[in-house]
Amino acid sequence: MALKTPKQYMDSLKDGRIVYFDGKKIPDVTKHPILNICNEWVAMDYVMSNDPKYQDILTDVDADGDRVSFALQPQRTEKDLLRLREVVKLWARTSFGKPTGAKFVAKDGLNAVTVISRRVDKKYGTHYAANVEAYRKYLQKNDLSFAMGLTDVKGDRSLSPSKQVQHKDFYVRIVEEKKDGIVVSGAKAHISQAPACNEILIAPCHAMKEEDKAYAVSFGVPANAKGITMISTEPEISEGFSIIDHPITGSVYINDALIIFDNVFIPNDRIFLKGEWEFAGETAVMFANFHRLSAETYKAVELELVTGAASLMAEYNGIEKKAHVREKLTWMVMYTEMIEILGKAAVEHCIKEEESDLVYPNPMIANICKYQFADNWHQATKYLQDIAGGIVATAPSGKDFLNPETRPMIEKYLAGKAGISTEDRFRVIKLCKDIGSSYEDVLTIHAEGSLEAQKLSILLLADFDRYRAAAMRAARVANRKEHPVFKDLPEFPPKLKL
Amino acid sequence: MALKTPKQYMDSLKDGRIVYFDGKKIPDVTKHPILNICNEWVAMDYVMSNDPKYQDILTDVDADGDRVSFALQPQRTEKDLLRLREVVKLWARTSFGKPTGAKFVAKDGLNAVTVISRRVDKKYGTHYAANVEAYRKYLQKNDLSFAMGLTDVKGDRSLSPSKQVQHKDFYVRIVEEKKDGIVVSGAKAHISQAPACNEILIAPCHAMKEEDKAYAVSFGVPANAKGITMISTEPEISEGFSIIDHPITGSVYINDALIIFDNVFIPNDRIFLKGEWEFAGETAVMFANFHRLSAETYKAVELELVTGAASLMAEYNGIEKKAHVREKLTWMVMYTEMIEILGKAAVEHCIKEEESDLVYPNPMIANICKYQFADNWHQATKYLQDIAGGIVATAPSGKDFLNPETRPMIEKYLAGKAGISTEDRFRVIKLCKDIGSSYEDVLTIHAEGSLEAQKLSILLLADFDRYRAAAMRAARVANRKEHPVFKDLPEFPPKLKL
Amino acid sequence: MALKTPKQYMDSLKDGRIVYFDGKKIPDVTKHPILNICNEWVAMDYVMSNDPKYQDILTDVDADGDRVSFALQPQRTEKDLLRLREVVKLWARTSFGKPTGAKFVAKDGLNAVTVISRRVDKKYGTHYAANVEAYRKYLQKNDLSFAMGLTDVKGDRSLSPSKQVQHKDFYVRIVEEKKDGIVVSGAKAHISQAPACNEILIAPCHAMKEEDKAYAVSFGVPANAKGITMISTEPEISEGFSIIDHPITGSVYINDALIIFDNVFIPNDRIFLKGEWEFAGETAVMFANFHRLSAETYKAVELELVTGAASLMAEYNGIEKKAHVREKLTWMVMYTEMIEILGKAAVEHCIKEEESDLVYPNPMIANICKYQFADNWHQATKYLQDIAGGIVATAPSGKDFLNPETRPMIEKYLAGKAGISTEDRFRVIKLCKDIGSSYEDVLTIHAEGSLEAQKLSILLLADFDRYRAAAMRAARVANRKEHPVFKDLPEFPPKLKL
Amino acid sequence: MALKTPKQYMDSLKDGRIVYFDGKKIPDVTKHPILNICNEWVAMDYVMSNDPKYQDILTDVDADGDRVSFALQPQRTEKDLLRLREVVKLWARTSFGKPTGAKFVAKDGLNAVTVISRRVDKKYGTHYAANVEAYRKYLQKNDLSFAMGLTDVKGDRSLSPSKQVQHKDFYVRIVEEKKDGIVVSGAKAHISQAPACNEILIAPCHAMKEEDKAYAVSFGVPANAKGITMISTEPEISEGFSIIDHPITGSVYINDALIIFDNVFIPNDRIFLKGEWEFAGETAVMFANFHRLSAETYKAVELELVTGAASLMAEYNGIEKKAHVREKLTWMVMYTEMIEILGKAAVEHCIKEEESDLVYPNPMIANICKYQFADNWHQATKYLQDIAGGIVATAPSGKDFLNPETRPMIEKYLAGKAGISTEDRFRVIKLCKDIGSSYEDVLTIHAEGSLEAQKLSILLLADFDRYRAAAMRAARVANRKEHPVFKDLPEFPPKLKL
Repeated sequence: MALKTPKQYMDSLKDGRIVYFDGKKIPDVTKHPILNICNEWVAMDYVMSNDPKYQDILTDVDADGDRVSFALQPQRTEKDLLRLREVVKLWARTSFGKPTGAKFVAKDGLNAVTVISRRVDKKYGTHYAANVEAYRKYLQKNDLSFAMGLTDVKGDRSLSPSKQVQHKDFYVRIVEEKKDGIVVSGAKAHISQAPACNEILIAPCHAMKEEDKAYAVSFGVPANAKGITMISTEPEISEGFSIIDHPITGSVYINDALIIFDNVFIPNDRIFLKGEWEFAGETAVMFANFHRLSAETYKAVELELVTGAASLMAEYNGIEKKAHVREKLTWMVMYTEMIEILGKAAVEHCIKEEESDLVYPNPMIANICKYQFADNWHQATKYLQDIAGGIVATAPSGKDFLNPETRPMIEKYLAGKAGISTEDRFRVIKLCKDIGSSYEDVLTIHAEGSLEAQKLSILLLADFDRYRAAAMRAARVANRKEHPVFKDLPEFPPKLKL
Repeated sequence: MALKTPKQYMDSLKDGRIVYFDGKKIPDVTKHPILNICNEWVAMDYVMSNDPKYQDILTDVDADGDRVSFALQPQRTEKDLLRLREVVKLWARTSFGKPTGAKFVAKDGLNAVTVISRRVDKKYGTHYAANVEAYRKYLQKNDLSFAMGLTDVKGDRSLSPSKQVQHKDFYVRIVEEKKDGIVVSGAKAHISQAPACNEILIAPCHAMKEEDKAYAVSFGVPANAKGITMISTEPEISEGFSIIDHPITGSVYINDALIIFDNVFIPNDRIFLKGEWEFAGETAVMFANFHRLSAETYKAVELELVTGAASLMAEYNGIEKKAHVREKLTWMVMYTEMIEILGKAAVEHCIKEEESDLVYPNPMIANICKYQFADNWHQATKYLQDIAGGIVATAPSGKDFLNPETRPMIEKYLAGKAGISTEDRFRVIKLCKDIGSSYEDVLTIHAEGSLEAQKLSILLLADFDRYRAAAMRAARVANRKEHPVFKDLPEFPPKLKL
Repeated sequence: MALKTPKQYMDSLKDGRIVYFDGKKIPDVTKHPILNICNEWVAMDYVMSNDPKYQDILTDVDADGDRVSFALQPQRTEKDLLRLREVVKLWARTSFGKPTGAKFVAKDGLNAVTVISRRVDKKYGTHYAANVEAYRKYLQKNDLSFAMGLTDVKGDRSLSPSKQVQHKDFYVRIVEEKKDGIVVSGAKAHISQAPACNEILIAPCHAMKEEDKAYAVSFGVPANAKGITMISTEPEISEGFSIIDHPITGSVYINDALIIFDNVFIPNDRIFLKGEWEFAGETAVMFANFHRLSAETYKAVELELVTGAASLMAEYNGIEKKAHVREKLTWMVMYTEMIEILGKAAVEHCIKEEESDLVYPNPMIANICKYQFADNWHQATKYLQDIAGGIVATAPSGKDFLNPETRPMIEKYLAGKAGISTEDRFRVIKLCKDIGSSYEDVLTIHAEGSLEAQKLSILLLADFDRYRAAAMRAARVANRKEHPVFKDLPEFPPKLKL
Repeated sequence: MALKTPKQYMDSLKDGRIVYFDGKKIPDVTKHPILNICNEWVAMDYVMSNDPKYQDILTDVDADGDRVSFALQPQRTEKDLLRLREVVKLWARTSFGKPTGAKFVAKDGLNAVTVISRRVDKKYGTHYAANVEAYRKYLQKNDLSFAMGLTDVKGDRSLSPSKQVQHKDFYVRIVEEKKDGIVVSGAKAHISQAPACNEILIAPCHAMKEEDKAYAVSFGVPANAKGITMISTEPEISEGFSIIDHPITGSVYINDALIIFDNVFIPNDRIFLKGEWEFAGETAVMFANFHRLSAETYKAVELELVTGAASLMAEYNGIEKKAHVREKLTWMVMYTEMIEILGKAAVEHCIKEEESDLVYPNPMIANICKYQFADNWHQATKYLQDIAGGIVATAPSGKDFLNPETRPMIEKYLAGKAGISTEDRFRVIKLCKDIGSSYEDVLTIHAEGSLEAQKLSILLLADFDRYRAAAMRAARVANRKEHPVFKDLPEFPPKLKL
């Protein structure tokens, strides 16, 4: 089978899946006006892959002559990663900063289990790698959308999975082993676009100890499997909203759903990790290694939009020459470009994972990039809001703008600089409001790992031996080990023979 | 007449006022479910003033033996201001951080025109002061709610009112002078709770030049005056919302409306400034002087709630002992207390305005307080969101929590630390979301004057002569003027006679 | 006896004390050009106390009719503390930001042992309070300068005093108890102006456990006691320096010496704590409580000088109108004034220590003030250096300025704006350099307790119950305890009966 | 001629040059103990170029078979620039963070005039390019050290060169044109290592207007030319200092001298710009373009040393496991690595200057790198000082450490964690002090252009069209121009035909 069409994709969602939304069970997700915002956004993968204009970048022809999604191909070279950056940029630019989610997150999970399954097989003689390869092929050949179920609901964060007090299902775990498979229970939180995906790839979200081995589990499962319930995220919009008021959140509903597993059966050939607890943490880290590329690439695209909104409002308000506005715009440009540069540099200095032949971005650079993005976002929205003005909070609704009774008043009084249409200004004001939403804020600091996670990675990756050798040499510390970077340097100050 | 009851207040809003909301004209604002959120919040003024428990602090008995709102009394001593702080705190604590708006903003405008009208009368022999006093009496005796119409829509911010290109009504102006009054046109933006008020007090929002004299105008006008149209702010919630999802924005809708004046007639006895352009800026500055107290007092109350939410989430998530969480909470405590201290210190070092006998907070301290609040807000929400977790963005809706089909799953899986009810955690998660809304963000940096406005005030108030004298003395600069603080200091280093 | 004269003070230093400086033992500290910088700075206490112009503020007449230093009087009222602020300001303004050190630090230690000795006496029936009172009287009647020996050298900071590995003397401790006194050994680090003081007051620097009871020791001891060796701090200047190059560091050498105690005998009547380990921490905290006033008062004076230097350089360079310069100056003004306001507010909301009747600044406010000062200093020097220009680093020496061969060239080429003498500019450039010294930087963040110490205090003092009550009420958390601030608030939103 | 030996270089400085230092004229700079610190540091270029171990990287063999400095070769490819980074790193690591200055700055000036002279020749038919080439050859063949005289003393920064009030020599200018050359007067400030160089390359420091054409002048001149006087920078150390106390500033004295030109004659063949005022700004910008590589490369090396010092002190003090210390070290690692990454990325995305075939780092990336370095330095020193402790300010001098009377006391009491030699700790404490010097601080923000200069460059280089196109598309702004990045994107949300 070749690529799916958008229609085939939409039809595939009518599969009996259990999805709740805003207090109700939704019999057909493709019929629901707000769930469809998510569906249509995911459908962009199919729209574009089938469009000859984008097919060369978005797809490959496989050994069988079938056209398959490039995102599902293993990336083996820096060039592959640079192309993947272009893919993510195209996806993100199309959808106002948020890459369509058909394969966006889970492709990185697939690479993670590709790497780790080989390590497990090597140590234990298991056959997970073959399962992963078969799963990859299945996804490719059926052009499936799939979500990444990584983050468990976690309960009390100070307790490990098996030490939780109220119950033992705060992390997805094996509750029963059968001859032909396993039975799992538990829940995964904020699984992006899961209700709009065909498959869900599950992996542990952090390191486990031996006592937690039932939680060291990874597998692929259809979204409509018996025992799976998905509860949708409360959206930013409600039915009947005006797209003027919500230019982004009315077009992109990521639906980071809560997924509950109630005794779900997983057949043996869909299992990628089963109790080998010492590989749980590696899986999570390896997912992060691969996913950094995706995360960092779209962030820069998102920032280009945010900085653009600030630049437009500066002009629309007639304040673009003010010194403080220029200062703030400069900071925003620097932030935008820095994320782009660091994200690209991480790829240009990518790491080859030896056993699997896969490549991923340089983790030190990638973590710095991610941290810088997340740590500066709130400053950026502050500047955007400062430039845009209080009207961002207080503007009438888009429906007032469209109402012929009030429109002339709004046209007249919410005009900015001459030569700018009031409608344009009104729309960008609303864009600014959408950008600063609580949802966006939280997404920026928590999606793809928290600020603290990046800090920990950076500390672990730091080359303190080199730093210390530099300092000890300058301080003339007697008791220092030789360090390769410094040991061959000439004596300084020199002993000149004059 | 004495204090109004809540019912009398609500009835007073059925006065034929023209209010638009979300694309529709609302025939009776007291019948509209969302406008009523604003109305009921404003009604708290009447609820509390009539409650014997709060009457001593909220009201005074006037010379006629009538009980009147303390907020409408002129404050003449530090003690009055400290009481006013207690009033604002009571209002703010009651309504989740946002003081009920019946008199909250406009009382400060009333004080501003009280001060400035005397200056104008003194210079020009006008009789504005008497008009102001009569207006104050009228407001007191009828216990009216009134809004402050300060900020004009402004058009191109780089152009003065009379130099605007598209039309001349970007600032409220006198379009005609009649024997018995004036006719005004223009629009005021984000006028808090105007659609829920009886009166609107209008004043210029910044300094004017002679050419802008038509814009140097101040007056009081009923909200239902002929020619006035109010277009409501797009709210954060829509009909049918769950209060669980919007604990603050579902209880407090400030409705910072856009008010359009289309040839509105203002009788002579309601005019407080009419073309005396050199007093326009002073009016705006004096409003800010008085309003700082209000703004700063409720900000500290708001922060106590924000810091509390962070502290609760830290515990609910089981991370309250983590070093980074303690670090962030410490910062939030410092921020919260600093705003309280600075706000109080501004009052404790208040300034007496000589001609009017009114007192207002020390402007240097007050501006620093306001700036620190606004400048640090986004950092605080970042920390709150960091501690609370990604679930703030991705939690299901309150209706899912109430749905008996999904509630057991949410109860089980969104539980945090043992001993905490999941419902409590779920509600605080939603509180965190509400706190970080785009609306709140923008409010914090723009309400009561922008960051740049505070910076400008601080620079203008700075005692550079003193600072420079200190530096010149240390640097032994020969060419320095004597400065009172330094001129009598002993010589240093000393010339000791030993 | 009455107040000492400067000459008497200088003579008192010729007492056989053991002082090392820059690799040499100094037989007479009053004959050493650099140690004398410290001595003369300390002597300002005597110069000013004997000057009728300052006597009213700096001294009191005691019950015997003797004039004594106000700094040595116990402060019992807010008014006393406000006067003490004026005293510290006078001292600090005189000496370019650094208060003369005759009693500046140790007076706060004296108050601390005054408070704690009563607590110990009460619990154990000891007689330390009488010893403290006698010591205070002795200091007053002889107008002695005294240093505060608080900070131990500490060795490995992760180990308690008695658990140190290399030796047991990293904290001053009792090595022997005799009938008539104790013998102590150990060392105290960075004891400001100790080599210029008559007495040293020793107290523990942090809490102790029972196993550390030998380290829970406090006493007063003459600087020339047998067994005491003082090693001076490496100064910022060397002999023959030009005062032009070092306007501050050439006039104020604080000499934060290392003091070694080698079996020093302390007679019983000079002991204030001896093994009552549970009071060690309280002593340190109480010292901090009192000392905050001193620290915060002079910091604001220091900042007035720093901000003045920036303002002068802005003008001298002709850039005072540039937007970025105005922005930086505004920030510096805000920083300067905020420290002044917070320091004053801490005093205006001072705490009465019940048993001793002494008062000290509000610790929450005082810790915030100290933290804000220390945390922002490096930003301030960055701005100062940014405004002043690279010439701060690269200017020729003051001797080149005075050399008639080079002076005309410097006069011509290092001129700034017309109308400003080049000498003035040259001197302020050098002042800027002095302000940014490594010594100043470290002093700002470590003197009077580290940033982390303030953060810990703030966290411990935080009223989380109040913060949480506010959040729980807004979130409608069911399981909440009543809190006094919130329990009597009216219901909100109201249930109106209309 | 081939490479110079260190001895030949030292001898070359005995050429009658006029150098003042600390109030005295220095007859032979090679005999002066402090000037020799600078000379020996510069001599490292000769030491290393003649050492077979480094010759391959530091030198090339030219067309004549002569070995010449690679730094003097024109860089034409990314590979050349990457090698140049390695050269700068080697220089910087050798000399404790500061690259030896024989060619370090001026090589970039040489490239700048190489580029600009061609443009001028093209426009005006002049022959400057040939002069530049001859000069380059001369420098190569004689292996000369040369300084870059860019920054003028500037006088009143708000006035252009020709509008200065006190005199007209605040910028170097042509005072007379002769048949065989020009006569110049004026002064250049903070010209690094000029007194230790053979030649000085002069260029304008910013854009000029036509009225300033006499100031649009560039040339090469020997350091001992008649009319040149150099006044040395006040050093951080004085004679007899201990290297323990000043491990960096006692080994590297950059001597950013003030150079005065008093009617200095420049022959025609040494002139590279003479009145073509519209190229003055381009020269300065082009210098910055080339010099960014040098600046950014050594900064990362410097930071490796700073972060190493912090890491060592954390261990020596026994606090390396404390959460706040780990937090601070993480930040320092991120800062260090970010500068390295950005500096390298700027080279990896270098720009080819078409006419000259030279390449230089990407200016957007390079400016961001430089800004980030300079903007964060003070934060880094704050963290370093926080970790190292107050002892950085208060430690005794290195001479006390060496004094056998005091050494045992210091050995005992300034010990840190067991297993660390006190001497090592003492030396690193002093290194920390040296790193935080006023000189370093100012150097970091002013060397290679101020923070404001980078901000301006970033704003000018920003691709606002792209940013705005992104925002306008999301906001559905009607009136938008097509933008190449966005015009071919598919419609979103899609109009699915289902």
